[in-house]
Amino acid sequence: MTTTPATSLRISQHYDRVRQQSVYLCTPLETEDYTVQPTEDVSPPKWHLGHSTWFFENFILAEHAPGYRHFDERLNWFFNSYYESQGPRILRSRRGNMTRPTLQVILDYRRHVDAAMQELLEKDDETVRILTTLGLHHEQQHQELLLTDIKYILGSNPLYPVYRQGEMEKATSVAHTFLSIAGGQYTIGHSGPGFCWDNELSRHDVLVEDFGIGSRLVTNGEYRAFMEDGGYERFELWQMEGIAWARELEIKAPLYWYPQGGDWKHYTLNGGLADIDPHLPVTHISWYEADAYARWAGARLATEFEWEIACRQLEPEVPRRGNWVERKDFHPTPARNADDHQLLGHCWEWTNSAYLPYPRYPRPEGALGEYNGKFMVNQMVLRGGSCATPVSHIRPTYRNFFQTDKRWQFTGIRLATDR
Amino acid sequence: MTTTPATSLRISQHYDRVRQQSVYLCTPLETEDYTVQPTEDVSPPKWHLGHSTWFFENFILAEHAPGYRHFDERLNWFFNSYYESQGPRILRSRRGNMTRPTLQVILDYRRHVDAAMQELLEKDDETVRILTTLGLHHEQQHQELLLTDIKYILGSNPLYPVYRQGEMEKATSVAHTFLSIAGGQYTIGHSGPGFCWDNELSRHDVLVEDFGIGSRLVTNGEYRAFMEDGGYERFELWQMEGIAWARELEIKAPLYWYPQGGDWKHYTLNGGLADIDPHLPVTHISWYEADAYARWAGARLATEFEWEIACRQLEPEVPRRGNWVERKDFHPTPARNADDHQLLGHCWEWTNSAYLPYPRYPRPEGALGEYNGKFMVNQMVLRGGSCATPVSHIRPTYRNFFQTDKRWQFTGIRLATDR
Amino acid sequence: MTTTPATSLRISQHYDRVRQQSVYLCTPLETEDYTVQPTEDVSPPKWHLGHSTWFFENFILAEHAPGYRHFDERLNWFFNSYYESQGPRILRSRRGNMTRPTLQVILDYRRHVDAAMQELLEKDDETVRILTTLGLHHEQQHQELLLTDIKYILGSNPLYPVYRQGEMEKATSVAHTFLSIAGGQYTIGHSGPGFCWDNELSRHDVLVEDFGIGSRLVTNGEYRAFMEDGGYERFELWQMEGIAWARELEIKAPLYWYPQGGDWKHYTLNGGLADIDPHLPVTHISWYEADAYARWAGARLATEFEWEIACRQLEPEVPRRGNWVERKDFHPTPARNADDHQLLGHCWEWTNSAYLPYPRYPRPEGALGEYNGKFMVNQMVLRGGSCATPVSHIRPTYRNFFQTDKRWQFTGIRLATDR
Amino acid sequence: MTTTPATSLRISQHYDRVRQQSVYLCTPLETEDYTVQPTEDVSPPKWHLGHSTWFFENFILAEHAPGYRHFDERLNWFFNSYYESQGPRILRSRRGNMTRPTLQVILDYRRHVDAAMQELLEKDDETVRILTTLGLHHEQQHQELLLTDIKYILGSNPLYPVYRQGEMEKATSVAHTFLSIAGGQYTIGHSGPGFCWDNELSRHDVLVEDFGIGSRLVTNGEYRAFMEDGGYERFELWQMEGIAWARELEIKAPLYWYPQGGDWKHYTLNGGLADIDPHLPVTHISWYEADAYARWAGARLATEFEWEIACRQLEPEVPRRGNWVERKDFHPTPARNADDHQLLGHCWEWTNSAYLPYPRYPRPEGALGEYNGKFMVNQMVLRGGSCATPVSHIRPTYRNFFQTDKRWQFTGIRLATDR
Repeated sequence: MTTTPATSLRISQHYDRVRQQSVYLCTPLETEDYTVQPTEDVSPPKWHLGHSTWFFENFILAEHAPGYRHFDERLNWFFNSYYESQGPRILRSRRGNMTRPTLQVILDYRRHVDAAMQELLEKDDETVRILTTLGLHHEQQHQELLLTDIKYILGSNPLYPVYRQGEMEKATSVAHTFLSIAGGQYTIGHSGPGFCWDNELSRHDVLVEDFGIGSRLVTNGEYRAFMEDGGYERFELWQMEGIAWARELEIKAPLYWYPQGGDWKHYTLNGGLADIDPHLPVTHISWYEADAYARWAGARLATEFEWEIACRQLEPEVPRRGNWVERKDFHPTPARNADDHQLLGHCWEWTNSAYLPYPRYPRPEGALGEYNGKFMVNQMVLRGGSCATPVSHIRPTYRNFFQTDKRWQFTGIRLATDR
Repeated sequence: MTTTPATSLRISQHYDRVRQQSVYLCTPLETEDYTVQPTEDVSPPKWHLGHSTWFFENFILAEHAPGYRHFDERLNWFFNSYYESQGPRILRSRRGNMTRPTLQVILDYRRHVDAAMQELLEKDDETVRILTTLGLHHEQQHQELLLTDIKYILGSNPLYPVYRQGEMEKATSVAHTFLSIAGGQYTIGHSGPGFCWDNELSRHDVLVEDFGIGSRLVTNGEYRAFMEDGGYERFELWQMEGIAWARELEIKAPLYWYPQGGDWKHYTLNGGLADIDPHLPVTHISWYEADAYARWAGARLATEFEWEIACRQLEPEVPRRGNWVERKDFHPTPARNADDHQLLGHCWEWTNSAYLPYPRYPRPEGALGEYNGKFMVNQMVLRGGSCATPVSHIRPTYRNFFQTDKRWQFTGIRLATDR
Repeated sequence: MTTTPATSLRISQHYDRVRQQSVYLCTPLETEDYTVQPTEDVSPPKWHLGHSTWFFENFILAEHAPGYRHFDERLNWFFNSYYESQGPRILRSRRGNMTRPTLQVILDYRRHVDAAMQELLEKDDETVRILTTLGLHHEQQHQELLLTDIKYILGSNPLYPVYRQGEMEKATSVAHTFLSIAGGQYTIGHSGPGFCWDNELSRHDVLVEDFGIGSRLVTNGEYRAFMEDGGYERFELWQMEGIAWARELEIKAPLYWYPQGGDWKHYTLNGGLADIDPHLPVTHISWYEADAYARWAGARLATEFEWEIACRQLEPEVPRRGNWVERKDFHPTPARNADDHQLLGHCWEWTNSAYLPYPRYPRPEGALGEYNGKFMVNQMVLRGGSCATPVSHIRPTYRNFFQTDKRWQFTGIRLATDR
Repeated sequence: MTTTPATSLRISQHYDRVRQQSVYLCTPLETEDYTVQPTEDVSPPKWHLGHSTWFFENFILAEHAPGYRHFDERLNWFFNSYYESQGPRILRSRRGNMTRPTLQVILDYRRHVDAAMQELLEKDDETVRILTTLGLHHEQQHQELLLTDIKYILGSNPLYPVYRQGEMEKATSVAHTFLSIAGGQYTIGHSGPGFCWDNELSRHDVLVEDFGIGSRLVTNGEYRAFMEDGGYERFELWQMEGIAWARELEIKAPLYWYPQGGDWKHYTLNGGLADIDPHLPVTHISWYEADAYARWAGARLATEFEWEIACRQLEPEVPRRGNWVERKDFHPTPARNADDHQLLGHCWEWTNSAYLPYPRYPRPEGALGEYNGKFMVNQMVLRGGSCATPVSHIRPTYRNFFQTDKRWQFTGIRLATDR
């Protein structure tokens, strides 16, 4: 699943920074916030802190650190997520019932594992370095989940507590156009020295036809026009499965939009319950909604190949957006001008590609083969990375994937058209 | 629902003691333990602390304390349990998702309400005194639930944390016999000056036939013999609905009994995962199991009338068992000799009576009519009080009631026979 | 479960008449109507024809007819209803998927068994005679179910086919009053030479207080006034479980009442979709609805003891209503005058008594112990018999029982009051 | 959705033949068999007969036959399948509760519509001809469903009735090899004068890499080796969603395989419960099972593009297999020799392609846009046609699609490999 680690930091220093970041993300929380699981997809923050630690203990220390003493072997049951090869584990839906180990114990667990990891990293073993890089990427995926899960925990509480106070960037109207991309034969998938996941391989060629790609993300104001045009009732705009989902759950707006006195407000991490800026990208929508919106707009979603091709042409350099650790917006930012295409680091953009293996997909043996390879059915690919995604997870070839009804990630809509 | 308050303490002093007891019961908990709801019947401890406070604020202070300032009006939604008359409220099943208000805020809420209550009680108003007595009885019911809910939270966690370390009383074998009670006309229901719930009224006469009542509760050892005799598989011992329940949920033992290395252990509040003493009363069983056990034993459950009649004859004085606040067993204690009938304060004893109104049942108007009167269908009566029941809730006429599948209370089995 | 057979016919002649009646009841059906199970409670008519036949084959012929040759041993699996002692059987909810054996095969099965039964009855064995009487009573219970299940099958089809064309009796307004019944000690339960079920025993004494009993059944017009007074929304009238049921299923009227152009119509067996006569008894209501209606009317439901006592006083002779085979109304008939109390043969009247064993209940050993004795939890008693009940099942001591949400029987409401 | 009708018959003659075929397929049924719906996917045969008739009445006669008199307008509610644009309709899961209209009425309905259609076809209107062609293709899809639904109805009945007696072809062992197909740029999708569905368009180019394709379908014997090698328990062979499905439903073998005395038998339409020939293709497996089997075999499923390319190279002529009406096997036939690749007309072969629109997919306006276009999510493509597929539905470009858990079609496994 890995290629050569791409970090320019010494690995032990990088290890420290990434590990501290997970704890830092939780600092605004009350102890109570760490424990609950209001819906099956959302894990308790303290579970994330424990699970990412277990990953290092179980896959690196237990295998590669001679004489390593487990912090507490009983924790395997709590913190194994879904690795069948790693023994029995708690039902996913019951993570939120486990008040013990407490947060304090888990923080002790982190210190115990971190100390052992630093000692091991001293030895400068290549296998350990590769596995550690993998573990840190894994931890960063959980940092994104920490933010989205915290948002769900706080945002479904009628007190709407603010996570970290911040200003929302003021937005102005920027026209939406379709940019033409020439069809032809393109190469898809990761190459080069940096890290990538197994599912970004094998690099291979595809043919695409000429297509147009939306110049920016769809905004709250545009999405609201869809709502006001009866978008959620007009069956002809939807996949049958999609409108059945919306009807069953009585869905009439994006997640976190709440009716207030005849208008809508939405919950944000940095402002609590807040007015909805019509120029900001719409987010927290399902694939079903993205697909219906696109049909309403007379367009369609891009395939993941179209998206990757467009991204390479329109975003020749992957933006860094400053030091991510310091980011305080926790919300997709607006397009600032006609050349701000918002392809990387704003929303995870639903594509119209199913999550399936690339040709010659190198499914790994053993536990790591369970990482990406056993989810390749009935999910759709998302591209681009969101405002909650660590910078090193933002690249044109990164394939995120979720079921079509999921809304708690910072998901968004990019339109495309035939040409 | 109330008659004259029976307390000999000044009411304000009594108020303080009862209110402090709720907080005291939670002192062994970690903050995380206060928040979760591992099954719908179990409420988060901090919810109990908030709800019992809301009861005083909403039904007494808001009505009877001029100029009372609510602590935070938004808390009504969180802490209204099921009173339709008191406005919208959280779905019961979602109490465990609410990390806010935090424990600290709820403790502030308690102090705010307690101060206002003490000020109000100074005025010595009779209505307030009656309602306060009611509120304190309500709070004591939640003290029992606090213990049983804490047991569920800790006892379903594979770390099996001890709640409060304590010794389990050593038990010896005491023979089980049937004591004869003469049939005839008896008066049932509460009388006298003390407090009772509305459902203990109206006092009325019933006819019973001669019957035998078990001299003590059924023990773990006896119940285990039933299990080892194929009790859970022998359909002829069960109600059809009961065996369907056991099959569907794969129930093969009382709640909190866990198989360990070919034997059974059980979780206890004062000892964590512990050996099962065969001479202690069996507890945490459903009505279905109690009914099947009785049939296996060639006996039956008593009706609630038989139970009340037997109790009056066999337990002429309601035992006090010392200062309840100091009790550390949190487990049914054994029968110590042939005259220890264990009728009061050991287990809630399932009867074979449905929970229905007595003749001339005085269902109150308004919110208090929702207290006991709207649950009078598809539940069975339990009598006697358990090791977790506050002393003032232990009396021969007290009618507890639960659905036939519930096991998280300290429930037990008393046999009866025709004569 | 049986006492001496009460029939004055020679048993073989009685056997023929009862058996023919089952087939006769189905004659208006199309073949398709015999096969389906639109809801779990409703069995396919051909299943009833097979099951009642299996009862004779399995419990009488197989045991008492030497050399009896089974029609087809594979049918046991299809036609065993719930007798655990009689081997594996089809899941109840899947009866409607079984297109084979076809109706023709089942009618052959009936002839095969009937011939063998007649041959066996020739021998005039007492055990056989007692079991046959039991089997015929069992068959008559299924005749009532045939009618109610046919009503469900036809009445939930938007073509609303008529079962057997008939006239609905014209009704007039008859005042509702409460008749006083003196309290005291009464004897309850069956006595005498006729047949009764085990659950009508043991005969025993009860005490009741003075009470009033409604002079007739509640009418459609009265029930409609409850509906129009917001009865289904006013939580204070309901058991909590009841209003949750009504909300979940969006119940706003009795079963078979359909809104039509601003008004209500109802489906009837003899008239299809028809106008609702306000003077006819309301029927097809759940216990929850009966209980809420009674509270709305300032009254309550009677206990089963009050009902039995009132019935003995008000209906000294059990009415026969002509030859039941010829009845064509298939609908509760109206009260004709102030002395027409409608206690027997109109509606099954919900009581406020749970279905529990009488003192010294003689639960039989073996399969027959599964007949009534394993349903004695979470059901309520109904008394009186309905327009669909065979005459020999109409008597003051007969205890019918159903869960509180069931509506497909001809159920009705009788009010009672304290005095 | 249509191009020029490809039939060489006069359309009215073709209409007759296709319509008669639907009725002919049902002739072995008993009336009872026509009515039930043992699982939601399976519709009652009489529903298919009505629905395909409604299609002509609703989309052709009502629009294009001036003065057409509906047979009975109430039937729209019964026979509209899922067309939101065509008004309210019965819940899909309740089709099996509708005993009326009876089979006889539906056959009358067919005659009524057929007469009107023949009259309309006389006028030789082009739009009518195009729509009629479409309607006949629609009817043929339902002919395949008739066979698979009948198989489910009969095959889940423990009497295992034979549908039409027939001989199963004797099979011998034929080696499985991988045939090499060269990668490159290929054109995908329908072209030419014949009929195709909208989802086979637009014709477009794709790139594929070199690959190997299985020389024949996977056999029962091979699949059984997978089962005996612990295939259903070895999580590393499965998608996570797949093994969760198998565990939840306790699936351990293909549909219709039943354990019998230590061995397996399977239900077949032409032989009832029969021995399993190890050399016949395995059928009635889900995508999950096909995917797991392929991984076990060290191979993978083909993409739908690979399949189409291989089919064009290996099956230059679409086989006709005699007059389909006369076919009596109703079971996939064995590979007869090394050159019998079984690509067309044996099993629907699961591919590893999600069912998504082709580039420039021409989703039609109106009701016909609901035909294929609203199912394009969370389903997988199947190719090749089965033993139950009408000949005119067997072509290399035909895209069938089902959810990944479906097994009641004649589905099978074709392996592929990277080269």
